[in-house]
Formats: sequence, structure tokens, C-alpha cells
Amino acid sequence: MTDMPDTPDTPDPTLAGFRQSIDNIDAALVFLLAERFKVTKAVGAHKAATRLPPADPVRETAQIERLRALAKTANLDPDFSEAFLRFVINEVIRHHERSRR
Amino acid sequence: MTDMPDTPDTPDPTLAGFRQSIDNIDAALVFLLAERFKVTKAVGAHKAATRLPPADPVRETAQIERLRALAKTANLDPDFSEAFLRFVINEVIRHHERSRR
Repeated sequence: MTDMPDTPDTPDPTLAGFRQSIDNIDAALVFLLAERFKVTKAVGAHKAATRLPPADPVRETAQIERLRALAKTANLDPDFSEAFLRFVINEVIRHHERSRR
Repeated sequence: MTDMPDTPDTPDPTLAGFRQSIDNIDAALVFLLAERFKVTKAVGAHKAATRLPPADPVRETAQIERLRALAKTANLDPDFSEAFLRFVINEVIRHHERSRR
């Protein structure tokens, strides 16, 4: 730990502490997202190799319902968790489309 | 571990394994996001109490640059990491606006 503020614009140690937590959490989120894309890339390759259809609406609905329920236990807005998952899934689709070119 | 597929629609154990990893990662993401919103809520309360301005463009630019650099080390698309952070920050702003009503 350090007494130095995170930037010269925030000499407030309370704010600097909060920001350090946010930065730690954001780093964890980025590395988890990177890991998630590694798995979805493997899923895409596996589906192509086994001639499974790329999209699975039943699976997607189940994912969203599960995440909404988890969000409630974490006191996170379920609508946000759903919007977040759709945001990530859209990026996965974009990856798959790019890799097909 | 189990040999059961994750849904009756996916009797493919390889796919079921990948999906279990995705579900684990998504749960971790949801709980991390919940923790992040706890911190940004505290930041909002602290800024209101100390009469600091709600927005800090210098801080936001630094966050985006840092996350883009981390994304590169994680082999994640830096543009996606930036879009992701903006998506989360927009939700934080929505929270702050809601709590001011």
C-alpha cells in the first residue's frame, strides 16, 4: 500500500482507495473476459468440426435466466446482467464472423 | 465432475465441458460486477459528501488506456475492452442518476 494518490488530480486518499479497488476489479474482469473468449473460440472450432449449428437459442435463454438469478443473489440489477451477457455474446458472434472470412 | 450433458440438447461431452467453463466464468463476472458497483456507489456517496464533481474525464481516459494495455497482455481485443468499460461506466452513470431522483 502507498499513501500516494492515484493521479495528481485526486489528492483525496478515500477516493484513491476506491479507485484502486475499481482498477483491481477491472483488471480481473479483463482477464476473465480474455479467458471466456478463449473458450468460445474453442466452442466455435468444435462446432465447425462436428457440424453443429453456430447458434443455440435454447442454451442462450438458459444462460440469461441463470445469470439473472445469480445477479439477484449478488444484489446486481438482473436487467444489467442480461444486457451485459448480450453485449458479450454479440462480441462472440462478431469473432465467429471475422474468423469465417 | 459429471458425465451428464448440460442440457438434453447437447449430448456432446466436449461441448458440455466448454459450456461449464463459460458458465463458471460468467458467474465470476457477475459477482465481480456486483462488487464493482458496490465500490462505485461508495464513490458516488463520497463525491456527493465532499462536493467533488461526479465526472472525471482525466481519470476515465487513464482507465481506458490502462485497460487497453491490460487487454493486449491478455490477448483480448483492446477495442472490446474499451467498449466493455464504456458499457459499465454508462451503467454507473445510470445508477447515479437514479439515486439522485
